[in-house]
Amino acid sequence: MAMERHGWRWLPGLLALLAALVVPKGWARDTSGAESLGLWPLPFAVDISPRSLHLSPNNFFFGHSPTSKAGSSCEILQEAFRRYYDFIFGFYKWHQGSYQLCFGTELQQLQVHVESECDTFPSISSNESYVLHVKGPEALLRANTVWGALRGLETFSQLIYQDSYGTFTVNESEIIDFPRFPHRGILIDTGRHFLSVKTIFKTLDAMAFNKFNVLHWHIVDDQSFPYQSINFPLLSSKGSYSLSHVYTPNDVRMVIEYARIRGIRVMPEFDTPGHSRSWGKGQKDLLTPCYRKQVLSGTFGPINPILNTTYNFLSKFFKEISTVFPDEFIHIGGDEVDFDCWASNSEILQFMQEKGFSKNFTKLQSFYVFKISNMISAMKKRPIVWQEAFDGRDKFMPGTVVQVWKIEDYKWEQSLITKAGFPVILSAPWYLDLISYGQDWKNYYEVEPQDFPGSDKERKRVLGGEACLWGEYVDATNLTPRLWYEI
Amino acid sequence: MAMERHGWRWLPGLLALLAALVVPKGWARDTSGAESLGLWPLPFAVDISPRSLHLSPNNFFFGHSPTSKAGSSCEILQEAFRRYYDFIFGFYKWHQGSYQLCFGTELQQLQVHVESECDTFPSISSNESYVLHVKGPEALLRANTVWGALRGLETFSQLIYQDSYGTFTVNESEIIDFPRFPHRGILIDTGRHFLSVKTIFKTLDAMAFNKFNVLHWHIVDDQSFPYQSINFPLLSSKGSYSLSHVYTPNDVRMVIEYARIRGIRVMPEFDTPGHSRSWGKGQKDLLTPCYRKQVLSGTFGPINPILNTTYNFLSKFFKEISTVFPDEFIHIGGDEVDFDCWASNSEILQFMQEKGFSKNFTKLQSFYVFKISNMISAMKKRPIVWQEAFDGRDKFMPGTVVQVWKIEDYKWEQSLITKAGFPVILSAPWYLDLISYGQDWKNYYEVEPQDFPGSDKERKRVLGGEACLWGEYVDATNLTPRLWYEI
Repeated sequence: MAMERHGWRWLPGLLALLAALVVPKGWARDTSGAESLGLWPLPFAVDISPRSLHLSPNNFFFGHSPTSKAGSSCEILQEAFRRYYDFIFGFYKWHQGSYQLCFGTELQQLQVHVESECDTFPSISSNESYVLHVKGPEALLRANTVWGALRGLETFSQLIYQDSYGTFTVNESEIIDFPRFPHRGILIDTGRHFLSVKTIFKTLDAMAFNKFNVLHWHIVDDQSFPYQSINFPLLSSKGSYSLSHVYTPNDVRMVIEYARIRGIRVMPEFDTPGHSRSWGKGQKDLLTPCYRKQVLSGTFGPINPILNTTYNFLSKFFKEISTVFPDEFIHIGGDEVDFDCWASNSEILQFMQEKGFSKNFTKLQSFYVFKISNMISAMKKRPIVWQEAFDGRDKFMPGTVVQVWKIEDYKWEQSLITKAGFPVILSAPWYLDLISYGQDWKNYYEVEPQDFPGSDKERKRVLGGEACLWGEYVDATNLTPRLWYEI
Repeated sequence: MAMERHGWRWLPGLLALLAALVVPKGWARDTSGAESLGLWPLPFAVDISPRSLHLSPNNFFFGHSPTSKAGSSCEILQEAFRRYYDFIFGFYKWHQGSYQLCFGTELQQLQVHVESECDTFPSISSNESYVLHVKGPEALLRANTVWGALRGLETFSQLIYQDSYGTFTVNESEIIDFPRFPHRGILIDTGRHFLSVKTIFKTLDAMAFNKFNVLHWHIVDDQSFPYQSINFPLLSSKGSYSLSHVYTPNDVRMVIEYARIRGIRVMPEFDTPGHSRSWGKGQKDLLTPCYRKQVLSGTFGPINPILNTTYNFLSKFFKEISTVFPDEFIHIGGDEVDFDCWASNSEILQFMQEKGFSKNFTKLQSFYVFKISNMISAMKKRPIVWQEAFDGRDKFMPGTVVQVWKIEDYKWEQSLITKAGFPVILSAPWYLDLISYGQDWKNYYEVEPQDFPGSDKERKRVLGGEACLWGEYVDATNLTPRLWYEI
């Protein structure tokens, strides 16, 4: 573990690229020291002095400041203290015995002060800022929330190195840091290739090292339905690749918990009405039956948007999702809906006639997305959709977040969405599954998420970005290199 | 280890593709059982009966047939027995205690019979055939050489599975196997990115599982010179990325030994006269000084082919290589020579005038390659060159092997080389560093190495193939997924 972490830290791969999401360009006050230390992502302001302090694994400890609102009863912090102690000292072999510091000053403690009480779950509005003063004999980390404290602990661990004698060393430093964007995500796709919980854990570890804070879990797709629903167990027992390629309620809880204590939100996606073939195996009459020359073809299309049973089912289903996943957001998809099957079905066509949609299937899609958005809102959650749901909107739920994924004219799309008043998440330039011979990372690093035509107010509607690692050609064997190393 | 091995076995990645090199198309007698067992690569003839035998880790052993010429004093076999016992049983947790076989027959031994004495090093002419009879209570593996025995042990280990009660099981089977081509290689490039010895070991393990038998070690290149020469230590001390990015004589010995006991040849490549920039740092006057408008530009080109000092140095250097590497072949490169620097240098031009080359730099290149080939031959080694050395040949050493790497018209190139009477190794369609979104492996699998215009005799000059994983964008972090998993 610690070793891998070191690999990740010193080989800032493809993804850590999302520096753009964390640090405003050209703002760092003094980065020379930070660069030689490999601080990653680079904090907002870094001031590293040449004066060095030494640390002894036996004497050093993480402590709570007496005035901190989140003290030793805060699990998030206690767990983080344990993790970061291991990250700092655990990688190296050291021996029990008496230590003697021959010269210089020792750093004996990092005292953590949190302004607000121990929080339970991170959210889009969590304050992740922190200030880190490293000075002997006690360093101080101040944060508004435990989430900021986690980011500060990560930075503190990155400051420590072994000098040429092997001595654990840290330079006196002053660091001020806060993220540029509140949403810094990675999409994993467990519908195309199943990923074990262990693999997801490993990804969450790497995300924490790189200060990512959202796991966008595209959990099901056409190919398989690995989510084991409490109310609809047939969905996974019929729709998964096999009964061992399933996320049980306990698996899902473990992923959410592992993410939570690292300050990472888990945002589930259940993509409909397209990308839903696997749903049809365990839920009768959910998908649209397709016709060929007025005869049932035996194949099925997107979710059937004209039946009450569809909405009754989805309402129950999303009710479950809204309780299983604590995050405020539920991603409801809405991308790449294939209209051919709808067009072949006379009942669908009749319904559209009645609604006055004529033959405009985009209107039917919008009708469906709006109903689902309403459903989600009624559960006190906020919907996120892929850009097509916005592009084809008729009625569109206020507050819906739009995720931009099409590389063509993505800046123009950002303009349109933000001009219409909707928040946007950018993914288009960070499709990490699309690989080529050569250095893709250069393009990823050069992206400026707010560089599109619009007013300052509109630009501020960019919540952040997400790197997408779609699973058609990715499984546990190549996920880690593709996310973090591939050069 | 065992776990990774299982990963490799059941996910026959990108590379295992070289099936084409091992099994003649359409020759397998009965592959149904073999496919369900995942035998990989598929042996020549497989006959698997439904009758199953059970194995107990406590009772089963590998033994030598009393008439075998390579007995218990043969290190190659003893080491292999140890490895394969672990591969078969080590992956599973099992408990000490008394075992009782409730029903059925037990397989207690695999007796190995080798027709010839324990060999030291594998070679291009090693006989790798074997016959495997699995029948209770004793199975028999017959091979002409220990190298064939190694391939048979690999196949035997692949036959064993756990039944639904966890019992170690093997079906009675008859397998006849021999490779289609004698040269089945993988090229690694430690000049662009250094690979640790541990990483090379891991690659050799995977090669053995897939019955590859040549590690083509492209050890140095323009970018760095990690080979620590005994006679010319400055080459690596000045030409490597750093003093820890070096293969010491002991490292090289360890790689050769690790490969040897797995029946894998290590074929070194020292590519000249191009691709040699790193040589110039530790060896004065070796590279051609380039001129700009009759003035020394300060930059250097290919190795200087007109100086006696060049050949004195290379003669000593290759003498060392010929003793360090036991393999019969030394790859001397000869690809992608940039003529601009030679053309800028008046001494080179004068030399060419004297030799009657006029302004034909290809002739100068050929002059150089022929001298090096002569050198290698005098050391009782055989040279291998990249195709350009053949294409531009003036005089060309008989017996030289030509490696085809350019994807354009590679079949035509194979025709030309074999028609001229030279053996060929095919790499062009297996450049594994060139990746794209999607399933590259389909193309790799469809290659037929003998499908080019020519006579049967000419087609038989194909020694085999090599998958090349060039190191521009590959290091230890993504090497394994790219070689074995990438889909």
